[in-house]
Amino acid sequence: MRGAWLDEGKLTYREDLEEPAGEAVVTVMLAGICGTDLELLHGYAGFHGIPGHEFVGRVERSADRPDLVGRRVVGEINVACGDCATCHAGRPTHCERRSVVGIRRHPGCFAERLALPVANLHLVPDSVPDEVAVFAEPAAAALHVLDAVSPQAGERVLVVGTGRLGILVARALLTTPADVRVLARNQARLPRLASLGLPATLEAAPGSCDVVVDCSGTAEGLALARAAVRPAGTLLLKGTHVGAASLDATSLVVDEVRVIGSRCGRFAPALRALASGELQVDDLVEARYPLSDCGRAFEHAGRPGALKVLLES
Amino acid sequence: MRGAWLDEGKLTYREDLEEPAGEAVVTVMLAGICGTDLELLHGYAGFHGIPGHEFVGRVERSADRPDLVGRRVVGEINVACGDCATCHAGRPTHCERRSVVGIRRHPGCFAERLALPVANLHLVPDSVPDEVAVFAEPAAAALHVLDAVSPQAGERVLVVGTGRLGILVARALLTTPADVRVLARNQARLPRLASLGLPATLEAAPGSCDVVVDCSGTAEGLALARAAVRPAGTLLLKGTHVGAASLDATSLVVDEVRVIGSRCGRFAPALRALASGELQVDDLVEARYPLSDCGRAFEHAGRPGALKVLLES
Repeated sequence: MRGAWLDEGKLTYREDLEEPAGEAVVTVMLAGICGTDLELLHGYAGFHGIPGHEFVGRVERSADRPDLVGRRVVGEINVACGDCATCHAGRPTHCERRSVVGIRRHPGCFAERLALPVANLHLVPDSVPDEVAVFAEPAAAALHVLDAVSPQAGERVLVVGTGRLGILVARALLTTPADVRVLARNQARLPRLASLGLPATLEAAPGSCDVVVDCSGTAEGLALARAAVRPAGTLLLKGTHVGAASLDATSLVVDEVRVIGSRCGRFAPALRALASGELQVDDLVEARYPLSDCGRAFEHAGRPGALKVLLES
Repeated sequence: MRGAWLDEGKLTYREDLEEPAGEAVVTVMLAGICGTDLELLHGYAGFHGIPGHEFVGRVERSADRPDLVGRRVVGEINVACGDCATCHAGRPTHCERRSVVGIRRHPGCFAERLALPVANLHLVPDSVPDEVAVFAEPAAAALHVLDAVSPQAGERVLVVGTGRLGILVARALLTTPADVRVLARNQARLPRLASLGLPATLEAAPGSCDVVVDCSGTAEGLALARAAVRPAGTLLLKGTHVGAASLDATSLVVDEVRVIGSRCGRFAPALRALASGELQVDDLVEARYPLSDCGRAFEHAGRPGALKVLLES
């Protein structure tokens, strides 16, 4: 099978990959490169194998569910054991024994095919084109912030970090009645943020925001985000950090700040928001590369300010 | 006026202190020494002056409210401006211009008298003896954890740190239907915790608790507390830390942990809980010293495992 292969911090295109096996085998049509994929290259999670976890595909075979064959699907990335205390408590995305597609002990989607449990699959409505459906996973992650906070009219919400994830998170928050801004690093970034429909601000006064979402992925961004939270306000942490990034405990106590870590979200509402256009993504595709060009695609996705780069099988 | 004086990390007893002036002048009957007072000695908050913020007293004079004269009172410690955006938003305890009794630009209660705005005073029900009323401030702080979490039956709650604050926090949590334990540092601590009515455990498996409250005041305690939180669980930070103590941001994201800083609480429910006996404190007084012995009293309060030490005017 053809696909990308990551090992010891190097990504290569190979044509000798092992065929996947599992409850359902899915032919990948489109796959998206995300920040985590780039971090894997730098050693995050110690992963080696086929990377990639954002995809839209078509079920090629499934012994238990032949009715799914030929259907267009997206897939949840956490593969839970279904049998531990955490799974029984209804938190399968935190299953200790979980594998994670393209991140942890599960071959990913930067290949012709991948295998997934049937329970992880979600049918894609016919009205949603591949270029939109491929955003199901990051859209779910972005909308997940609304599971943690419900900012009200008059509340000030700030998003720090305007990469791929930050843009989606800002758009998710813009569906609320709150006053939502993204923090622009400098004047030069303003036209681009405006073209993405994101209200921007060049500075965030310390303690000025009711809710701040850190999507920066950097220690500097986290520090800015923390400082912008008002006393008794909320700091949402979205996305992992490259290198160490920490929060001072005593200042959280004195300011009574609430910090909420937020990772993967629910696919069903994400697909609904994509289908209805409530969450716009079609303007976020910056480039498409064939799978055989995965090296160039990764290089492109790693450029500062790059939007979504897709791989086509 | 007689009282304690703190300057450059030294506590002295003086008889030449300036008489307090303010909306209400309160004669202090009993005052309690808390961990923060001990930290002030080590430079916390850069305070110099009369320390102390836990007290019960009697109103000696008040120009605006002569009806209060002779009444027994306790007092909230945050003196807010009442006029800034934070005060108008209903968060006076976070007023940026606030002074804090015995901690920040406001003479404290380890003296014969202190002054407070009338708005800070709460009348003490006749049924509540001085030895109980003097716990109003720490009781309010402890009960404040229940403003942040409402642990349910079957949920596992752990309190790390069994000093004065930890004991009160554990007792506050024991009013809920949850399964509440305190973490005992070693076997030798068990009889004492049992005598205080606190169910104890000698170990907390990583990820085993729904809610963990860190009352340790140390980086080691915080690390233990953080590790004990289950994925998507809650870590309450109660009490400030001596020295630096921090939380890793990426692990909060991956485990989707919620962290809530918690400081001062509401006096009215605290007085109700003290009056009803729902929050027991009368077994927590370890010693009483006259004001003139404030040095020895501080030394006593600083001994490992010391419970409440009171100063009598």
